[in-house]
Amino acid sequence: MTGPVPRPAEAPDLPAWTGVPRRVSVLGSTGSVGCSTIDLLKRMPERFRVVALTANTNAALLAEQALALGAEIAAIADPSALDELATRLAGSGIEAAAGSTAVIEAARRPTDITVAAIVGAAGLEPSLAALESGATLALANKECLVCAGTLFMRTADAHGSRILPVDSEHNAIFQALEGHNRDQVAEIVLTASGGPFRTRSREELSRVTRAEALKHPNWSMGAKITIDSSTMMNKGLELIEAHHLFGFPAERFSVLVHPQSVVHGLVRYTDGSVLAQLGSPDMRTPIAHCLAFPERMPVPVRALDLAAIGQLTFEPPDRERFPCLRLAEAALGQGGGATNVLNAANEIAVSAFLQDRISWARIAAVVEATLERCEVMGLSEGPASLAAALDLDRTARHIAIEVVGHSYG
Amino acid sequence: MTGPVPRPAEAPDLPAWTGVPRRVSVLGSTGSVGCSTIDLLKRMPERFRVVALTANTNAALLAEQALALGAEIAAIADPSALDELATRLAGSGIEAAAGSTAVIEAARRPTDITVAAIVGAAGLEPSLAALESGATLALANKECLVCAGTLFMRTADAHGSRILPVDSEHNAIFQALEGHNRDQVAEIVLTASGGPFRTRSREELSRVTRAEALKHPNWSMGAKITIDSSTMMNKGLELIEAHHLFGFPAERFSVLVHPQSVVHGLVRYTDGSVLAQLGSPDMRTPIAHCLAFPERMPVPVRALDLAAIGQLTFEPPDRERFPCLRLAEAALGQGGGATNVLNAANEIAVSAFLQDRISWARIAAVVEATLERCEVMGLSEGPASLAAALDLDRTARHIAIEVVGHSYG
Repeated sequence: MTGPVPRPAEAPDLPAWTGVPRRVSVLGSTGSVGCSTIDLLKRMPERFRVVALTANTNAALLAEQALALGAEIAAIADPSALDELATRLAGSGIEAAAGSTAVIEAARRPTDITVAAIVGAAGLEPSLAALESGATLALANKECLVCAGTLFMRTADAHGSRILPVDSEHNAIFQALEGHNRDQVAEIVLTASGGPFRTRSREELSRVTRAEALKHPNWSMGAKITIDSSTMMNKGLELIEAHHLFGFPAERFSVLVHPQSVVHGLVRYTDGSVLAQLGSPDMRTPIAHCLAFPERMPVPVRALDLAAIGQLTFEPPDRERFPCLRLAEAALGQGGGATNVLNAANEIAVSAFLQDRISWARIAAVVEATLERCEVMGLSEGPASLAAALDLDRTARHIAIEVVGHSYG
Repeated sequence: MTGPVPRPAEAPDLPAWTGVPRRVSVLGSTGSVGCSTIDLLKRMPERFRVVALTANTNAALLAEQALALGAEIAAIADPSALDELATRLAGSGIEAAAGSTAVIEAARRPTDITVAAIVGAAGLEPSLAALESGATLALANKECLVCAGTLFMRTADAHGSRILPVDSEHNAIFQALEGHNRDQVAEIVLTASGGPFRTRSREELSRVTRAEALKHPNWSMGAKITIDSSTMMNKGLELIEAHHLFGFPAERFSVLVHPQSVVHGLVRYTDGSVLAQLGSPDMRTPIAHCLAFPERMPVPVRALDLAAIGQLTFEPPDRERFPCLRLAEAALGQGGGATNVLNAANEIAVSAFLQDRISWARIAAVVEATLERCEVMGLSEGPASLAAALDLDRTARHIAIEVVGHSYG
């Protein structure tokens, strides 16, 4: 067995609860993860002091949250929403700010923990700003690790900050690693629901419609993530995130299909012990785990009742029917900028599918063709900065758009 | 939520592997757990220096193990076996000793870790001697905690020693607690195979034969434990052990029937996270966990393959069909000497069943009647010493034997 990829010294744990409120910011507070975070913060006002809340366009909800929690500042990315935000916060003493620079500046204010819940590439700069401020980052944004994983992990190490994963699968693995020796990890298993088409034949998959693909059995999610779940690209992107987050080589990870989504992740150790984290499908559990780490806080989630659930099933993933998983694994194995290209091409392909421009089965084909073209063009080097990552992202998107142009049907 | 039962300060962890061999003794080295331990020790001779091996009667195997591992001393409980042992060890430089006092003295020799794998009440004194010597005790003997749990835990605290559970269920819970905050434990779940009669009706259970009861689906075990598994008394006794070992109140524990015996134990935390330990049914995994703690050592066990297993099922235990579980839970709730009486009465009842003197269904009835009689007789106080525990055990056995006399059929 080879050891894990060398990692810099572990950042120290957050101090335990001491009665002093923990300073917290929520980037993307009006989205799904953001709202769940606000729900938790409201339940324990004595334990948290809210610094900054940021949103994209929903000034009304952002103002409501800021007022309810007594935030220092509310920043909205959409400059045209400033008037509404300022009006709603008038007289409260809460600062109102607008524009993407204002969001980044708000993210930079010192906190103990910052929840990075902005969706998409817009989350990159604010999340990095929070990390540079020395905050522990409770990371829900996928792009930070998929597009700039090396940069984020290096930044965390350089600033003595720590990244805690909010995503239920990564949070599960984090918990199954916590308190156990990294040197003796034999395998890290990400579980996957398998998506709505888990049991369909390849022939049936060629006829998948948009409406069908937008259904998902376990979680209520946005359209992009729902499609990614149906192609299993979602799990491929999570593998890439996990590689950066936990610092183990690609071959140490595996994927297990588990349709009930009760077991969120497993770690197998060299002595044969497998540690797993299980739970009800409620994002408040992993969010609370991050907010309170290394303590825990009570969450009003229904206790997992395995006797009532009755049965958990497991099966290997099928990389023939779900080639996106294979492509992601290959990109991760290849390293460099391949995972950036994979992610960008997938965004374009999914977008084209949602616009009925390509079929469901063509999503993987677009990603594969884009990866091949980028490799030929020498784009396979890893981005060393956020600017380089965004550049590579743009280039790959252009190429993917060209590929989509040739990919009707 | 009430906090856990107050416990004395945690003993320090064992030092990590440093290249210096760890001194280890194995009490009961020729039994099932003992032989698995010897197998592991043989695989890593550079990491362990064997101090004492003890056995009950099997001088040939004891001598073979002592020679293979270069033990300091081999002690056998049966005095008549001394000649054979001494002859087999002649010229090796390994001491040979015999008699129960010799076993206790061998157990008292200083070690880093002592595996307490003697079966039954005979394990009490040697295990306590090891604990008093300051060794970390890898405890496989059930009686130590069932009959003298308070005494064992107090002794460990007084001598700065630590008890690590070898039993797969307790070891699983230990691992699921490790590195996580005890104050935030909401529930500890012991899994149970449900035994061979899990699906039988009450009426069918009234006709169970000895031959049927001696079959068990998952583990190869002795007759006593096999019957305890069929009545679920085994799980009741494990609840009692877990209460002492982990220091949580009785109501914090629950039992979940899981016929595949893949998930060995679960801990639910207040934030909704459930941590579980899973593994193949190989005792070498929990034994290795104890031997190497807080590190791990590689074990040549087949990696758990959930995709190949396919399905795990869970159901609530049925205390009507398996009243022994209900009796054990009640005794644990009652505290004092009730658990001693339960254990002693169960031994007598199982023994009577194995001699075809009472039916399978009468086992619980004998235990219940013995508990009632002992309560009337004022025997419900907890034993404060090993002598008192053995006294109470003897008294309860006598009463149980009387009850059996009235219990034919």
